[in-house]
Amino acid sequence: MKDYIKHHEWKIIEEGFDPNYNRISESIFSIGNGRLGQRANFEEAYSGDSLRGSYIAGVYYPDKTRVGWWKNGYPEYFAKVINSVNWIGVNIHVEDEELDLAAAKILSFRRELDMKQGVLKRNFKVGLKSGKQLEIKASRFLSMDNPDIGALQYKIKPINFSGNLKIASYLDGDVFNEDSNYKEKFWKKVDQQIREDSGFLTLETLKTRFVACAAMRFQVKKGKQAITNIENFSKEKYIEGKVSCNAKEGEEVVIEKIVAITSSLNHEKQSIQKDTLLILDNAVKKGYSGLFQRHQKKWDSIWERSDIKIEGDVAAQQGIRFNIFQLNQTYTGDDDRLNIGPKGFTGEKYGGVTYWDTEGFCLPFYLSTSPQEVSKNLLLYRYKHLGKAIENAENLGFKNGAALYPMVTVNGKECHNEWEITFEEIHRNGAIAYAIWNYVNYTGDKEHLAPYGFEVLLAISRFWAQRVNWSDEKQSYVMLGVTGPNEYENNVNNNFHTNYMASWTLKYTMEVIEYMKKEHPYLYSELSRKWEFNELLETNHWKEIVEKMYFPFDDNRNIYLQQDGFLDKEIKPVSEIDNNETPIHQHWSWDRILRSCYIKQADVMQSLFWFEGDFSKSFLKRHFDFYEPITVHESSLSPCVHTILAAKIGYFEKAYQLYLRTARLDLDDYNNDTDDGLHITSMGGTWMAFVIGFGGLRAVNGKLIFNPFLPKKWKSYSFRVDFMGAHLEVIKGRNTFKIENHSDVEIQVEVWGKEQKLAANEVKNFKREKQNVS
Amino acid sequence: MKDYIKHHEWKIIEEGFDPNYNRISESIFSIGNGRLGQRANFEEAYSGDSLRGSYIAGVYYPDKTRVGWWKNGYPEYFAKVINSVNWIGVNIHVEDEELDLAAAKILSFRRELDMKQGVLKRNFKVGLKSGKQLEIKASRFLSMDNPDIGALQYKIKPINFSGNLKIASYLDGDVFNEDSNYKEKFWKKVDQQIREDSGFLTLETLKTRFVACAAMRFQVKKGKQAITNIENFSKEKYIEGKVSCNAKEGEEVVIEKIVAITSSLNHEKQSIQKDTLLILDNAVKKGYSGLFQRHQKKWDSIWERSDIKIEGDVAAQQGIRFNIFQLNQTYTGDDDRLNIGPKGFTGEKYGGVTYWDTEGFCLPFYLSTSPQEVSKNLLLYRYKHLGKAIENAENLGFKNGAALYPMVTVNGKECHNEWEITFEEIHRNGAIAYAIWNYVNYTGDKEHLAPYGFEVLLAISRFWAQRVNWSDEKQSYVMLGVTGPNEYENNVNNNFHTNYMASWTLKYTMEVIEYMKKEHPYLYSELSRKWEFNELLETNHWKEIVEKMYFPFDDNRNIYLQQDGFLDKEIKPVSEIDNNETPIHQHWSWDRILRSCYIKQADVMQSLFWFEGDFSKSFLKRHFDFYEPITVHESSLSPCVHTILAAKIGYFEKAYQLYLRTARLDLDDYNNDTDDGLHITSMGGTWMAFVIGFGGLRAVNGKLIFNPFLPKKWKSYSFRVDFMGAHLEVIKGRNTFKIENHSDVEIQVEVWGKEQKLAANEVKNFKREKQNVS
Repeated sequence: MKDYIKHHEWKIIEEGFDPNYNRISESIFSIGNGRLGQRANFEEAYSGDSLRGSYIAGVYYPDKTRVGWWKNGYPEYFAKVINSVNWIGVNIHVEDEELDLAAAKILSFRRELDMKQGVLKRNFKVGLKSGKQLEIKASRFLSMDNPDIGALQYKIKPINFSGNLKIASYLDGDVFNEDSNYKEKFWKKVDQQIREDSGFLTLETLKTRFVACAAMRFQVKKGKQAITNIENFSKEKYIEGKVSCNAKEGEEVVIEKIVAITSSLNHEKQSIQKDTLLILDNAVKKGYSGLFQRHQKKWDSIWERSDIKIEGDVAAQQGIRFNIFQLNQTYTGDDDRLNIGPKGFTGEKYGGVTYWDTEGFCLPFYLSTSPQEVSKNLLLYRYKHLGKAIENAENLGFKNGAALYPMVTVNGKECHNEWEITFEEIHRNGAIAYAIWNYVNYTGDKEHLAPYGFEVLLAISRFWAQRVNWSDEKQSYVMLGVTGPNEYENNVNNNFHTNYMASWTLKYTMEVIEYMKKEHPYLYSELSRKWEFNELLETNHWKEIVEKMYFPFDDNRNIYLQQDGFLDKEIKPVSEIDNNETPIHQHWSWDRILRSCYIKQADVMQSLFWFEGDFSKSFLKRHFDFYEPITVHESSLSPCVHTILAAKIGYFEKAYQLYLRTARLDLDDYNNDTDDGLHITSMGGTWMAFVIGFGGLRAVNGKLIFNPFLPKKWKSYSFRVDFMGAHLEVIKGRNTFKIENHSDVEIQVEVWGKEQKLAANEVKNFKREKQNVS
Repeated sequence: MKDYIKHHEWKIIEEGFDPNYNRISESIFSIGNGRLGQRANFEEAYSGDSLRGSYIAGVYYPDKTRVGWWKNGYPEYFAKVINSVNWIGVNIHVEDEELDLAAAKILSFRRELDMKQGVLKRNFKVGLKSGKQLEIKASRFLSMDNPDIGALQYKIKPINFSGNLKIASYLDGDVFNEDSNYKEKFWKKVDQQIREDSGFLTLETLKTRFVACAAMRFQVKKGKQAITNIENFSKEKYIEGKVSCNAKEGEEVVIEKIVAITSSLNHEKQSIQKDTLLILDNAVKKGYSGLFQRHQKKWDSIWERSDIKIEGDVAAQQGIRFNIFQLNQTYTGDDDRLNIGPKGFTGEKYGGVTYWDTEGFCLPFYLSTSPQEVSKNLLLYRYKHLGKAIENAENLGFKNGAALYPMVTVNGKECHNEWEITFEEIHRNGAIAYAIWNYVNYTGDKEHLAPYGFEVLLAISRFWAQRVNWSDEKQSYVMLGVTGPNEYENNVNNNFHTNYMASWTLKYTMEVIEYMKKEHPYLYSELSRKWEFNELLETNHWKEIVEKMYFPFDDNRNIYLQQDGFLDKEIKPVSEIDNNETPIHQHWSWDRILRSCYIKQADVMQSLFWFEGDFSKSFLKRHFDFYEPITVHESSLSPCVHTILAAKIGYFEKAYQLYLRTARLDLDDYNNDTDDGLHITSMGGTWMAFVIGFGGLRAVNGKLIFNPFLPKKWKSYSFRVDFMGAHLEVIKGRNTFKIENHSDVEIQVEVWGKEQKLAANEVKNFKREKQNVS
C-alpha cells in the first residue's frame, strides 16, 4: 500500500521522483488506444530501474512452455503480447553530457496523467554534473482518433546556461521481454531506413511472423526556427536522427515526434511499409496539435458516455475515473480479434492474453457504457475460436463437437504456462456461456443466438455432458478433478460453482433450442445437421444431468459447500491470521495454502452473484456469512463480487469496505504488484461493484432495475448507462434518486421494487417507500 | 517390448547392430562400480544417435527449476548427477578414413555384457568406404576393486589390407547433458595437460564447484612392439594422444587405456591432481590384465553372496541376474553420501538422485545380500540429512523440529523439477521411518536407534502430528492435500496409505521411546533436551491421533478406499481399456488420467504389503480383488508389490504373471523407455518379488520365515540371503525345499508355519504338510 499519488478529480499526479516507485508509476501512467499500449517510460535515456513496454494488441509470440515434467495435453506454448518497437525515444545531450534522471540531480519533478484529455505529461527541472540546469516539459498520447498514431512533444529549456544541445529522436526495435521463458529476443529485422527527419523500421516476430512497421517523423524548433542539420545513424533494428544546436538560456527548444505503428493484423505484408508511410504523412499534416484536438474530442465523447461522478470524496472520484479511463484505453471494441488481458497493455504479466476475466468482469462495463457492437465483438471473439475450443477438448479426450474454451488464449488455442490452472479451471466454459445470456438479456439482441450463441452453447453443453460422470456411490452426476475460481484449491471434486455452471448451461442451451426451433426452424435444422446434433438423445441426457447433478451441502449450516470435503478443513476466519502473514500467498507455502480453508476469490459466491434470482435473500445471507469471513480476496477479482452480494443483502457498510479494496487498487499499489502492470480486468469488477453493487443495477426481462444506496462518506454519486437504445444518467444523493433519460427512447425501469416508464428525455425523481436505509 | 537380446544364463548378448536400438543397448550394457557409471557408448567415433553418459556418483549440478508460475516453497533447483568426462574415447583412422559404425558397412557385430566377470565386450567386423575391412575386439570395465579406475582394451585387425592406422586415445570433458533445463554446459576447465602417452583433465562444475580429475595413460602395441611416436593434441577440456603405424593384414594392433577418475568428494581440491596421477601410476603398474583379475575376484564374491539361480528358464535366469548385477554396480554401500537413483548411472532421467525408491524397493535387497554396513549407510544417508529435512518442513510452515524428507534429493534439500509430486507425496516420510524399522527388524541392530533412528523418527512423527488436522465434520484426524504412491492422483484427501504411514510412525516412535528410556536413559534425556521434546504432551497428542485417525472405508465392499471420494469415479477394470490406449500415460490427457480410477502404482496395496501382519488373509484378498483389476502398473515399482501380495494370498499364477512384468523390464524394453536408462530401483523390487514373493521370506522377531512356491514353468530356483550373521542358500524344487546354512551361525527359521533351528553349516530339507500347492 502506497500513498504517493496526489488526489485530483481528473488527473493522476506524481510530485517528486522516487526511483523506487518508477516501475509502479510506469504502470499507473500508461497510455493506450485499444490497438497500441505504452508504459510511462521516460522519453530520454534512463539508466535506473525501468520496465520498458510498448505493445501492439494482437501481436504475440508463442513462448515455449516451461514445465518440469511434460504430460499429455499440456499447452505447447505460453502466448504473450510482446514488447515492440520503442517509439517514444528521445536522447538529449548538453555539451556531450547525456540527460539521464538516474544520474542527474532532480530539482523538481511532476508526472501527470490527464484522464479527461488522455495525455501524459512530465515537467521537471534537473541539474547535470556540469552544473548546467534544464527544464523539460514532455507530453504524449496515443491517438484515440487514429489508432495507428502516437505523438509526443518534448520541450527543453536551459535554465542557467547557453550552450550546445544535441537532440536525437529514434525508433528502437531491438527490444526484449523481461518475462521470456528462455531469454530470447522475439523480433528480427525485415527492413529499415533513416533519412533526415524520417525513417522506419519493419520488423517480424519469430515463429508467428507478424510484421510490424513503425515510421517516425520529427521536427526540432528553436523559437519558430526549424533546425535542419540532421545527422542520421542506424544499426540493426534501430534508426536515429540527431540535430545539434546552440540553445540560449531561457529559450525553449521543442521537438515534436509523430509516429505511425502498424501490424500485419491490419495490413498486407507486401504493402505495410507503404501504408504506414502514408498514414504517417497524413498524421504529420495535422501536426501534434491537430492530432491532439481530434484525440481529445474522442475522449470527450467517451466520458460523456461512461463517466461516474462522486461528490464528497476526491480519492474515490479519482479511483473510479482511473478505472473507466484504463478500460477504455485497453479495449475499444472495433476488432473482434482483440480482447482484454488481465494487465491490458501496461506490463508483461499474464502476457496480455485473454482469461475468463473478460466474460466474468469486463463485459458488464462495455455492455452498459459502449455501443452494442463492442460487447458483440467480445462474444464474436469466442465464437470465432469455437473450432479451436473443440480441438482443445479433443486433445483432452472429449468427442462429438464438445468444446472446452481455453483458460488462457490469444488465438483460441490453450496456451498457459502451467497445467494446474489451465486444465482444471473448466468453470471458464460456463462463464463463456453466461456471457451469451448476459449479452442477450441486456441488449435484447436475440438474433445473436442464431447462429453464434446457439453453436457455442451447444458445444459447451456437450462438454459438460461428457465431463460429468455418474457416481454409483452418490447416485448423482458428479464432476471430478476441477479447480473453481478459488485458485487456492486444486483438483477438487464437485466444486459447487463448476457444477452449477454446468447445470445452468445445459438448461439455458435447452431454452435456446426452443427459441431456435420457434424463430429459426430452418437454420436450426441446418445447424443440427452440421453438428450432428441428436436433439432428443442429447437433451434427454442433459435433462437427467440437470435433475441429478450433485451439489455438496452442509445440513447443519444449511449451505452449499465449495467442494467435497470442504468441512474437513479447519475453518477459522481470516481475522485470526497474523497480520505479518498476509497476503498468505506471499508468506505461506503453496502446500499450506492448498490445505487451508482460505478462499482467494469468490467461488460459491460467484454463482450466487450470477444466479441470485435462483436464491432467497436469507439463503444469500447465510452463504455470505459463512464464506466472506474465510475469503482472503487475494485476487483483485474477488471483492467486487462480495461487494455486490453485500449490497444485495443489505450489508451496506461491508459493501463499501469491500469496494475500497479495489477502488484504488493500482493507484495506491494496494497489493504491492502494480509495478508489473495495472489490474485492468479487475477495473471492470470495480465498475460492477459500483453500478451493480451501489446502484443495484439489474436488467431483467427488458427492464432496468435499480436498488441504489449511497455510501455514508459520500454526498452523492452519478453514473451513466446505455440500455436498449436509451442513455441514462443516474444520480444518487443522500435522500434523493434521480434518473435522467438523455435519449429519445422510452424504457421500463424498476426502482426499489416499483416499476415505471421512463419516457424519452424524461428526468424523474424517485423516493424510497418505507424506510430509506441509505 | 523388444526381443533382440539373446538369452544366456550369465551374459547379455546383442548380435547384429540396429542403430534404432543403440540407445537401448547403451543403457542395458552399462557398467559401473558404485562410484563411476558408464553407458555402453562406443569407444570409437559414432555419428549415429547415441546418449553419451559417464557419471561420477555424487557429483551434481543444481539445474534451475523450470516452472511456469512460481509459488512459495517450490524447489529452487533440480539437482542432477551430470555427464562427466568421456574416458572411453578412442579414435581410429585407416588411411585417413575414420572408423564410424554409422558410416561403415557392418559385416558382423556382437555386444556382450559378461555379468559374471563384470566386463563389457564388443566384437565386430566392418567394411570402410575404401573397401578396407577391419575386425575390432573391445573390452572394458570399471574396477570393483579400485573404484577410481576404468580400463579398456581395444584390438584392431586389418582383414583384407595392410596400411596406415592412426589410433588416438582421448579424454573429453567438453560434454553436456541432454536433459538440461536451460541448455547450459556444466563443467569448466581448471587445468589440463597431455604429454606423450599420459595426460589429465581437471574440471570444475559450475555453481556446486565439484572438482573432478581424470587422468589417462595408454599404450599401443603391434605384436609385442610398443609404438612410441605419439603426437599430442589438446583443446579446451580435451586432451589426446595419437599414434600412427603401418598395420599388416591379419596382424592385431592393441591399445590399452587405463584411466583414473576422482572427485573432490574424496580428495582435497589442492591435491586432487597429484592424488589422481598416483592412483593412475599404481593402476598402470598392474596393467589391464592385473586390474581385471582383481576386478573379477570382487565379482566372484558378490555372486557368491547374492546369486539367484533358476532352472528351466534361461530368460528368467538372465533377467534376475541382470537385476542383481546392476544393483551391485550402482551401489556398493561404502559411502553414506551416496544413494541409488531410479536409473542409477545408466542415463540422465531422474537425475541420478534419490527418491523413496531406496527405502521402499532397494533396502531389502541390500539387507539380505550385502554386509550390514551397506544398509546402515543407506540409513545414515537420511540421518545426515535430518537438518535439511527440518529446514524443508520449516519452508512449508512446520515448526518445532518437524522433518519432511524430500521427495527428490542429492544433498538433503528438496530439489524436484515440479511441485505436484514434490510437495504432496509426503508418504515418503513414512517410508524413511519404515526403513528404520525394517533395518532394525532384519539385522537386530537396535543400537542404530540410539541416536540415529530415534532422532529421525522423532522429527518425522512431529511432522505427522502437525500435518494432520482435526475434522469437526468427521470427528477424526484427517490428512488433506496429499498424493499417495499412485501418481495418477494429485492433491487428494485422506489417502489411506499416507494416513496409515503416519499413524504407524507415531506408534513405532512411541515404541522406540520406550526402548530408549529402558536401554539408553541418559542418551534419551540428552536427546529430549536437544530436541526440546515434551514427551508427555507430544505423545499424548500422538496417541489421540493414532486413536482417531480417519481411514476412508466402504461398508458395502468392506474395504479401505484409496482416498476420500474414490467411489465417485467410474470403476471399470483395466481389461476394458482399449489396447490401443495403453499405457494410458502415453495416450490419455493428464486431465483424463487424474479423473479415472486407474492406479499407476500400488497404493493401498503398499500399506498392505508393509503391514500385512496387521490384516487377515481374507482382508488382503478382498483388497487385492478390488485394486488389482484397476491397477495399470505404469510404474515399474508396482508389480513387485502385487506379486508379493498375490503370493501371500495364494494367487500363485497371478503372482508369476505380475513378476514377468518386471523380471525382464529393461532387457525386453517392456515399457519402451529403456533408451534413457535402466530401471535400477525397480530391480530391487523385482528381487523382492522373487525372494519375498516366491520365497515367502519374512523376518519376524529374529527368525526367518519361508513360505516358498515354485512357478509352474520352472524346475527349481535358489537364492541366497544373509540373516543375523548367517549366510543361507535356499533351494526350492518341484516338491522339495532345502536350506543350506553356509555359516557358523545358528539361526531360527520357520518354514510353512513350522519353526525350527538351523544349526551352523546345516543343510536341511523341508516338506510341506497338508497339500503342497506349489
